[in-house]
Amino acid sequence: MHVRAFMEEMERLAPPDLAEDFDAGKIGLIVEGKTKIGTVCCALDATPSVVKRAVAARADMLLVHHTPLWTPLTSLTGPTASLMRDVLAAGLNIYVMHTNFDHAESGVNDALAELLSLENTVPMSLGLAGDCSLSLTEIARRLECPLQVWGKIRQLHRLAIVAGSGFDPAFMTEAKERGADAFLSAELKHSVYRASPLPCIEATHYALEAPAMKRLALRKGWHFIADPPVMHTIP
Amino acid sequence: MHVRAFMEEMERLAPPDLAEDFDAGKIGLIVEGKTKIGTVCCALDATPSVVKRAVAARADMLLVHHTPLWTPLTSLTGPTASLMRDVLAAGLNIYVMHTNFDHAESGVNDALAELLSLENTVPMSLGLAGDCSLSLTEIARRLECPLQVWGKIRQLHRLAIVAGSGFDPAFMTEAKERGADAFLSAELKHSVYRASPLPCIEATHYALEAPAMKRLALRKGWHFIADPPVMHTIP
Amino acid sequence: MHVRAFMEEMERLAPPDLAEDFDAGKIGLIVEGKTKIGTVCCALDATPSVVKRAVAARADMLLVHHTPLWTPLTSLTGPTASLMRDVLAAGLNIYVMHTNFDHAESGVNDALAELLSLENTVPMSLGLAGDCSLSLTEIARRLECPLQVWGKIRQLHRLAIVAGSGFDPAFMTEAKERGADAFLSAELKHSVYRASPLPCIEATHYALEAPAMKRLALRKGWHFIADPPVMHTIP
Amino acid sequence: MHVRAFMEEMERLAPPDLAEDFDAGKIGLIVEGKTKIGTVCCALDATPSVVKRAVAARADMLLVHHTPLWTPLTSLTGPTASLMRDVLAAGLNIYVMHTNFDHAESGVNDALAELLSLENTVPMSLGLAGDCSLSLTEIARRLECPLQVWGKIRQLHRLAIVAGSGFDPAFMTEAKERGADAFLSAELKHSVYRASPLPCIEATHYALEAPAMKRLALRKGWHFIADPPVMHTIP
Amino acid sequence: MHVRAFMEEMERLAPPDLAEDFDAGKIGLIVEGKTKIGTVCCALDATPSVVKRAVAARADMLLVHHTPLWTPLTSLTGPTASLMRDVLAAGLNIYVMHTNFDHAESGVNDALAELLSLENTVPMSLGLAGDCSLSLTEIARRLECPLQVWGKIRQLHRLAIVAGSGFDPAFMTEAKERGADAFLSAELKHSVYRASPLPCIEATHYALEAPAMKRLALRKGWHFIADPPVMHTIP
Amino acid sequence: MHVRAFMEEMERLAPPDLAEDFDAGKIGLIVEGKTKIGTVCCALDATPSVVKRAVAARADMLLVHHTPLWTPLTSLTGPTASLMRDVLAAGLNIYVMHTNFDHAESGVNDALAELLSLENTVPMSLGLAGDCSLSLTEIARRLECPLQVWGKIRQLHRLAIVAGSGFDPAFMTEAKERGADAFLSAELKHSVYRASPLPCIEATHYALEAPAMKRLALRKGWHFIADPPVMHTIP
Repeated sequence: MHVRAFMEEMERLAPPDLAEDFDAGKIGLIVEGKTKIGTVCCALDATPSVVKRAVAARADMLLVHHTPLWTPLTSLTGPTASLMRDVLAAGLNIYVMHTNFDHAESGVNDALAELLSLENTVPMSLGLAGDCSLSLTEIARRLECPLQVWGKIRQLHRLAIVAGSGFDPAFMTEAKERGADAFLSAELKHSVYRASPLPCIEATHYALEAPAMKRLALRKGWHFIADPPVMHTIP
Repeated sequence: MHVRAFMEEMERLAPPDLAEDFDAGKIGLIVEGKTKIGTVCCALDATPSVVKRAVAARADMLLVHHTPLWTPLTSLTGPTASLMRDVLAAGLNIYVMHTNFDHAESGVNDALAELLSLENTVPMSLGLAGDCSLSLTEIARRLECPLQVWGKIRQLHRLAIVAGSGFDPAFMTEAKERGADAFLSAELKHSVYRASPLPCIEATHYALEAPAMKRLALRKGWHFIADPPVMHTIP
Repeated sequence: MHVRAFMEEMERLAPPDLAEDFDAGKIGLIVEGKTKIGTVCCALDATPSVVKRAVAARADMLLVHHTPLWTPLTSLTGPTASLMRDVLAAGLNIYVMHTNFDHAESGVNDALAELLSLENTVPMSLGLAGDCSLSLTEIARRLECPLQVWGKIRQLHRLAIVAGSGFDPAFMTEAKERGADAFLSAELKHSVYRASPLPCIEATHYALEAPAMKRLALRKGWHFIADPPVMHTIP
Repeated sequence: MHVRAFMEEMERLAPPDLAEDFDAGKIGLIVEGKTKIGTVCCALDATPSVVKRAVAARADMLLVHHTPLWTPLTSLTGPTASLMRDVLAAGLNIYVMHTNFDHAESGVNDALAELLSLENTVPMSLGLAGDCSLSLTEIARRLECPLQVWGKIRQLHRLAIVAGSGFDPAFMTEAKERGADAFLSAELKHSVYRASPLPCIEATHYALEAPAMKRLALRKGWHFIADPPVMHTIP
Repeated sequence: MHVRAFMEEMERLAPPDLAEDFDAGKIGLIVEGKTKIGTVCCALDATPSVVKRAVAARADMLLVHHTPLWTPLTSLTGPTASLMRDVLAAGLNIYVMHTNFDHAESGVNDALAELLSLENTVPMSLGLAGDCSLSLTEIARRLECPLQVWGKIRQLHRLAIVAGSGFDPAFMTEAKERGADAFLSAELKHSVYRASPLPCIEATHYALEAPAMKRLALRKGWHFIADPPVMHTIP
Repeated sequence: MHVRAFMEEMERLAPPDLAEDFDAGKIGLIVEGKTKIGTVCCALDATPSVVKRAVAARADMLLVHHTPLWTPLTSLTGPTASLMRDVLAAGLNIYVMHTNFDHAESGVNDALAELLSLENTVPMSLGLAGDCSLSLTEIARRLECPLQVWGKIRQLHRLAIVAGSGFDPAFMTEAKERGADAFLSAELKHSVYRASPLPCIEATHYALEAPAMKRLALRKGWHFIADPPVMHTIP
């Protein structure tokens, strides 16, 4: 498949005009390699380890959620130079679907809702709210990461979820208005917690977003490369 | 003591010109009440609960680290109106020492270093690095909060600490240059972890900063009002 | 009446989307008090005197034209702290209708036109022009303030009016194009006078805007609280 | 005298680096005419009438306080084209001393203080405060304009003055701290009056600044061209 | 003809809303002179020489492509004062058609295409591309200026042209997409040449834009005043 | 030599703090390759051809005047991806000295002055002025590029030079004040020529700056890679 055809297919899956303004220039074909795409790998981030495994798998294309070139560059040095050396030398393409995939139908948030078996879902500005029949322990098991629960959850019939870093006061107010009993996301700040209208369930960023990449790889017959953070809780 | 004299004393403890630019207008006497200061309470945040307890204790002054009026206001509604009603009705003053207290000698970071028994400390742009003889379990015990450890800590002879939300790539590079084996702070973002030059130990924002307020209260003979986040870890 | 119902009624009188951009966040419910609205007072400004009289009248709501919280606040000190203490302690709501009421039908400018018996009026970008059969002396009498007349008025058949601080060169050019013989407003600047295409009649800001608040109070059965500037002319 | 020598003399009188930032490019030689300066006229503003009288007096130089080219121009049309035609055709130079003359020793504010016989004066950020033995009626007589007195003046031993448009809350606070009983300036805004810490005496902009130009002309043997606003008070 | 009627005719030729945003306030009647327009002169720039010749020809109107008042002015000194003295004293109007004339039908680019006998032309964002049967030597002859040819032109069947300073990477990419073999414009920068997708033919700015003014003068029966740069090539 | 040592040596030659603000992040080590530097190549630009020749020469370092990464990048595609692939794959370092080398002693402008045998030179804000005994034909010969001479040069005793794109009105005024008879630089704009106080001699950007790189290579024993623009003049 020509890289152009691959890009068009991805643009149908995650239309670029769904992306937030801050993603301008940071989604789509971010590193240009070979024009013919056979093997495709898929991951959350283009870490050095992911790139090495993609190259070892003779991938022509690596599809990721987070661009490896976020901060605009006027030099290529240090770890970025090493990473780009590996990528360019192998002729590997990197294609990024970020907030356009967050907002897309069957995108990042829908994949998370499916994983958590949410029902009767309603969309929010970002993420969604739905009926939840899982225990917190079961949620942690399915996400494959420990949870930090902030505030007292009196009941958990209805859960609001925003994959990634979604503890935004506006979304949390919206979740409460939609009847949520708790709000699940990642990267909770102290000041946001202090003003939160709902109890907060904090998972890792990776745990909430990787399922969408994994599910996409499964559907497309690509190779998903897992690279979760190495993290443990004490005590 | 006249409120003016109290303010001068606090300005010696945490000189306003040590504050970051973003704190302009957000430190010092933030709510003006009675002019005569007898009873002083001290806390990390001016939460509704803290204010109620301060009023119940007949405090004239509440000294906090985080201002209750962070976002510039053109209206007084909702929880802020309720809080200000309680504060103003009681004639309670609120005085804020924020990044000026972070940077001050015997300030927020020094208090944390003392709590963790760090030795041979060297200052960083923010926070400091020092020799650490505690186990992670003991650190968690002293901080009274669970820790999330990101990455592999091969040894922990030297620890860098930044109280509050201090996982900033610049500080982390600085910590590595100063020989740190790990970096302790709060509110770690996924993208920062991915590029981190050091293993990260994530505590709560409250656990890292409250000790300084508690120690200050102890020294001054004030009443410290604890109000830690309600948080537990699953599994 | 619930405060929500009161707000909806006011939004019909002075729709928020008629307001200028600089009024964003500065109109509507500016201080939140009791939720049940019985007694309503009305004034041009929420001065300390007006607030004290409203509280003495056991008002639940004070409706004003000028917000008492114009400059965004990150502290509550000095006169603003005193004023807010009185307001919040009494559970008094403050609701503001500013440029949305200037532009509204039956709003600030229409009330002024009615007071001055203007006929055959045509709207301008702000304010309006109409036939005027009053003498300057009679205008001063109805406005209850002295007038300063700048330039020579050869005839006064048609008068342009902009309540408040409306001596804007663009409006004055517009007034001339609409056949006005003179332009009535407040707060004339020297440089604007020098380039003015029309003679200018300068009244006080209060005199031009208070009539609308008074008329509204009359129609609604509220209590209007007068608080004109203390001003006299020499010689 | 060569125009260059004239400019140097004026720069000693009103050093350009005393000017406010907003005067950048708007003071000094604003219109360039003949290089040899014999007859000099002086006025507050370069109005059409002033220019015609200066040309009729065969002036080579017109020195004014307010530039006729305040708003940056990309076209010369309407009244500005007419004015510049008269000025350029006559080879008349226009030289502007604005905020640099306000701040200069023996400048605009000092001339006003002298006219009002102020004694024991102390400088403020702009303007000054001094002992005043005149009645309000006598002040009005000397300024040759009516006064509007805002608020109640209980006594008038010490008067703060700022020539031109000087009712700035910062200056008014400063005046109070320097013991002033009232504040004299021009162009008082309603919102500033409402928060004023002092009673305000409002004169015309012209009346406060023209004396300095007149005095300068007298000292230098130039011709002062008066052009006060045509203004009267009703009733 | 009244100047107003002349302006309306010009606005039909070069509609102001075709102009680029940076031309705001810099097109149309830039200097206002006599209201009755008899003799009209036309040139590319209002240079001192052009103005003197227009005045000598007793012109009432000088129509130019480049405004003489590009940089916003707060003073009239030096060469600009001299030029405006000549223009205003003679009552000469100056009317400017700039980027609106570049984009207009039968405008600057169309005139250039006609001069170079381009056929089968297609418009670009600015300028156009067309079939060209002239040799480079013939192009130089018609433009009456030497050419600098950058890069190797293998064939020249199709030529893209942008009158004025048009070597913009976006236009050059567009030209290539429209099948151009080379790109003709003025003021080529080194960095643009290095990244150019096409060979570049560089003429003078004057040579590319003057033909449109000359052609317009011919059509309207005006007097075209030539004032090309004095330029020669070495060796 | 370690790359760090090489960088320190270059920083002595062209101190980074001499650079203009717009060069922030765009000078120094722009692409990081091998840490051990043996063979060094030097050129004006890192064009594809220059890079290929440097790689063929087994260079470890390519020192250039113009960075290949001027516009901040969030993707690596098209010609930039190709270029970076070649550079990174070869482990080639790219080091940039731009405006810091323009301003440095023995830098870009000094090399040009030497090439043109200027004497009694005085520095300007950028570039310099000196006595010149060469004919225009000889200047063209030494620069190895044709010259365009704008305006009439009556005599050429003293010449101002600014290597690169230096036809800036401020520099040209400065040159005239320093007694220059003509101004030599590159990339002259029509509007600048029209207002120029001096005749202008326009060479190519390359011709003015490459000599400094060549001279530096000679002194250091590096290999200079020439890549002048392909340009010829018609007729």
